[in-house]
Amino acid sequence: MRILLIGASGTIGSAVCEELGARHEVITAGRNGADVIVDITSPDSITAMYQEVGKVDAVVSTAGSTYFGPLTELTPENNELSIESKLKGQVNLVLLGHPYVNDRGSFTLTTGIIMDDPIVGGVSSAMAGGAIKAFVTAAAIEMPRGIRINNVSPNVVAESIGTYGPYFPGFDPVPASKVALAFRKSVEGGQTGQTYTVY
Amino acid sequence: MRILLIGASGTIGSAVCEELGARHEVITAGRNGADVIVDITSPDSITAMYQEVGKVDAVVSTAGSTYFGPLTELTPENNELSIESKLKGQVNLVLLGHPYVNDRGSFTLTTGIIMDDPIVGGVSSAMAGGAIKAFVTAAAIEMPRGIRINNVSPNVVAESIGTYGPYFPGFDPVPASKVALAFRKSVEGGQTGQTYTVY
Repeated sequence: MRILLIGASGTIGSAVCEELGARHEVITAGRNGADVIVDITSPDSITAMYQEVGKVDAVVSTAGSTYFGPLTELTPENNELSIESKLKGQVNLVLLGHPYVNDRGSFTLTTGIIMDDPIVGGVSSAMAGGAIKAFVTAAAIEMPRGIRINNVSPNVVAESIGTYGPYFPGFDPVPASKVALAFRKSVEGGQTGQTYTVY
Repeated sequence: MRILLIGASGTIGSAVCEELGARHEVITAGRNGADVIVDITSPDSITAMYQEVGKVDAVVSTAGSTYFGPLTELTPENNELSIESKLKGQVNLVLLGHPYVNDRGSFTLTTGIIMDDPIVGGVSSAMAGGAIKAFVTAAAIEMPRGIRINNVSPNVVAESIGTYGPYFPGFDPVPASKVALAFRKSVEGGQTGQTYTVY
């Protein structure tokens, strides 16, 4: 398959690139250090990426920034990071990208455990994840030409525990390689409308 | 209790107003025909509303517009209606409003069945509902001063079946008065972080 992976330089993105790269042609995209440069907060940048890459069999997003901070300090302004990036960025990858995906191809987006199992400081990120999960559930029944769509919701990954560990007390980290398997299931399998939780 | 009800003129809002008005002081807010005029897509308008109303025991939102239309016609631009109104509008009612809610008061927001049980044309609305549901789940563990937060997810209501019925084939409509009971449970009960499904 020809696979476009957005967010390839991140911890999960790197593991997905390794997992899928063994059997497929993976084109990486991201803000820097990728085959194609893209800023997913810009619809124009997303469209330019698809025009440059052309037809693909699968689009995988491990991209999307979110705001972390206490609820009492969360403002409409700083909540915009999660909305513009993780939420609208990933949604727009689908809305603008489906014409570039081959028949019976797929989209796989990323959510996260804190939409189900909240942590202090994670309200904005949870909100974005919940939006993506529901978007996937609903979009699956309407995707054209047999295109499938799923999302992977990872726990905190072991490789990031040095940075994020203190925010996830009592959470049992999973290796990024295990999260990558869920992306493989989405891309190479036949299911649609799924939320693959790797908790 | 002193309750601020945003979206009081809608079908569900009217039923909630009737249910809560029997036992409480209800101040209505909305784009027109309400005690206080507010446009929830504007943070400034939300803040002005709270300044005008002052302290309340509960904030109830039955407000929020969403875009309906086929996925293949859903663009980043028309998806903005759901994001600006149902999603950010309701989130910002909480972010900007909690200082105006008395200790152990509550917020109750509105989502909808199609985030769980999708319909054709409902992708954008489902996305907004999923965001609000996850926001509520996460915000509940961080609300200051014992303030609670829940959301009510109604099925299509019987009173709207003339308008929305064709979009909900095989759905079993619920009376708005039954949906209003879930809002009463949220406001007068003690639970937090809940999604009350009235399906």
